[in-house]
Amino acid sequence: MGDMERGRARYGEGAADRLLAALSGLGSDLGRYGVAFNFGEIYSRPGLDLKQRQIASIASLVDIGGVEPQLTGHINAGLTVGLIPEEIVEVIIHCVQYAGFPRAINALTVAKKVFEQRGVA
Amino acid sequence: MGDMERGRARYGEGAADRLLAALSGLGSDLGRYGVAFNFGEIYSRPGLDLKQRQIASIASLVDIGGVEPQLTGHINAGLTVGLIPEEIVEVIIHCVQYAGFPRAINALTVAKKVFEQRGVA
Amino acid sequence: MGDMERGRARYGEGAADRLLAALSGLGSDLGRYGVAFNFGEIYSRPGLDLKQRQIASIASLVDIGGVEPQLTGHINAGLTVGLIPEEIVEVIIHCVQYAGFPRAINALTVAKKVFEQRGVA
Amino acid sequence: MGDMERGRARYGEGAADRLLAALSGLGSDLGRYGVAFNFGEIYSRPGLDLKQRQIASIASLVDIGGVEPQLTGHINAGLTVGLIPEEIVEVIIHCVQYAGFPRAINALTVAKKVFEQRGVA
Amino acid sequence: MGDMERGRARYGEGAADRLLAALSGLGSDLGRYGVAFNFGEIYSRPGLDLKQRQIASIASLVDIGGVEPQLTGHINAGLTVGLIPEEIVEVIIHCVQYAGFPRAINALTVAKKVFEQRGVA
Amino acid sequence: MGDMERGRARYGEGAADRLLAALSGLGSDLGRYGVAFNFGEIYSRPGLDLKQRQIASIASLVDIGGVEPQLTGHINAGLTVGLIPEEIVEVIIHCVQYAGFPRAINALTVAKKVFEQRGVA
Repeated sequence: MGDMERGRARYGEGAADRLLAALSGLGSDLGRYGVAFNFGEIYSRPGLDLKQRQIASIASLVDIGGVEPQLTGHINAGLTVGLIPEEIVEVIIHCVQYAGFPRAINALTVAKKVFEQRGVA
Repeated sequence: MGDMERGRARYGEGAADRLLAALSGLGSDLGRYGVAFNFGEIYSRPGLDLKQRQIASIASLVDIGGVEPQLTGHINAGLTVGLIPEEIVEVIIHCVQYAGFPRAINALTVAKKVFEQRGVA
Repeated sequence: MGDMERGRARYGEGAADRLLAALSGLGSDLGRYGVAFNFGEIYSRPGLDLKQRQIASIASLVDIGGVEPQLTGHINAGLTVGLIPEEIVEVIIHCVQYAGFPRAINALTVAKKVFEQRGVA
Repeated sequence: MGDMERGRARYGEGAADRLLAALSGLGSDLGRYGVAFNFGEIYSRPGLDLKQRQIASIASLVDIGGVEPQLTGHINAGLTVGLIPEEIVEVIIHCVQYAGFPRAINALTVAKKVFEQRGVA
Repeated sequence: MGDMERGRARYGEGAADRLLAALSGLGSDLGRYGVAFNFGEIYSRPGLDLKQRQIASIASLVDIGGVEPQLTGHINAGLTVGLIPEEIVEVIIHCVQYAGFPRAINALTVAKKVFEQRGVA
Repeated sequence: MGDMERGRARYGEGAADRLLAALSGLGSDLGRYGVAFNFGEIYSRPGLDLKQRQIASIASLVDIGGVEPQLTGHINAGLTVGLIPEEIVEVIIHCVQYAGFPRAINALTVAKKVFEQRGVA
């Protein structure tokens, strides 16, 4: 379970909390899979550094759309691993080519809310 | 920038306001792209008239799903350029073939709220 | 209209109510199509039993994402036709392979709210 | 069934053929629903004219992505009901705002193939 | 690894082969995750029987769209675990409510091809 | 147009060629927008380096699904700007959390084909 701890650190606390909240009661296995698979496996892998992984995660969530809680979590996680607000915004702007304007604009709104809550940017 | 003014008029104020709100602070370039590209280029093009463009926009937003703020904006814009509520509703009903019932029903709920706010239909 | 009554019983009241709410005013034809097509045709067909149909519906809504009202309706409907909470949660966990973690986690949150409201699980 | 004939004429033969091909053997009910619901109901409705309906259909198929056979069918149908190639292309360009560049570019490729096959544009 | 064997049997050989093909060379970890997570964990879980799991999988793949290789695999798997062609077709028809007609029609085409290859239906 | 040249270099030739092919005949404006907006604006922006932009692009295309030509183009572009095959594969594996297994497995198949064509990995 050392992997899970390492993965959790890399995953970012914002997003991790949501998964962990799913760990109690019915369906707790989904939280457990998220922790073990996402933290313990994916985020613990070498090959990409922490910032690169959060770039890929934020891009994914902008493109999928309708997953604001996870986008909030991963923007927080991005800041935690050292992405600066300008880089996170740049990922969102970059994705307008693929996700279209509505999803990109909505993601920017989420990002600004996170920055404000953390008092950055 | 004449194009932008022309585009803005064609785009509809509801949807335009959201883009313009993105024009300040971090990520203001995304709002600027939206204004310059969507207003200044796309909505300023000949080939389709204003009503036809809003039909395509509303259909797109029904199909994409999860973009209620933009759907609200473009339903307002559709009314502004002369679509009647019955035509907007008909676009939503038409799209049930492609978007499935859940997204179409949710879009109809958004449309009725806009009509009520504007006191039409 | 016997078919519609039969279909309605099979569809589940939670989801049916939403369609029926769309039956008045502008766009009432969409509600009418939903009732006639979904209830009267699809849910009235033999070939799959009631539980199997709700498994397919809940899986669909997890995968589509962003359709919480319908997911709420069909989780209620699933309980009504005899699926137990553990089975509904299992469908959601199953779909993580296809829908990814964010949509599955969000669906689990919806399910837990329904179970709590109905005092099951 | 007069409605179905009327609907079929409005739907366009390209897209209709695909549905009708589904009318034999297993699953023929899906083809039958498509004919009865899409042709007989949706495309037979007043409120939008034939060109407006094909604009909404083509926009929908660009946005959904991955449905080339239907896009081919509806671009053919659009031409049949009187849209000119420039208008069909303009719908595709319009949708780049919502569907992103990859889906719009791929749809343009489909459209050009249809125009070439029909010797228009 | 007993779990993996059990999972593989439940997953169906058609779909399993595709994952296993990903097990060699670059990216073999993705195949390994698919085998360990999908077979070893998800498909090995109690709570839903084999037929119920394939109903949820086939529904998911119809709704997601554009994943024909996996749809082919899981329709094969569905037959292997005892779903009859009529039930598989019924799942596809059921999903037209959520996935829209284009994706459902395309899925039916895939299903018919599988049935023909296996000489069933 | 200096920007466009700079953008093109950053965009990668594989993906650029596809846009440029759209530059002739009907709809050439879509290619022109792609070149001017994607190359000339987005890919020319500071804030993210070339590798980071291709990570975001490849992640986006894995998540969207059904856009193999663009995925091929951007995997080529990723190699051109200095991502190594192991990093590209790692982005695809990372995205399985968001895109699900079918889209990730299909993207891996595309990547392996590109690597083979270029004789890398």
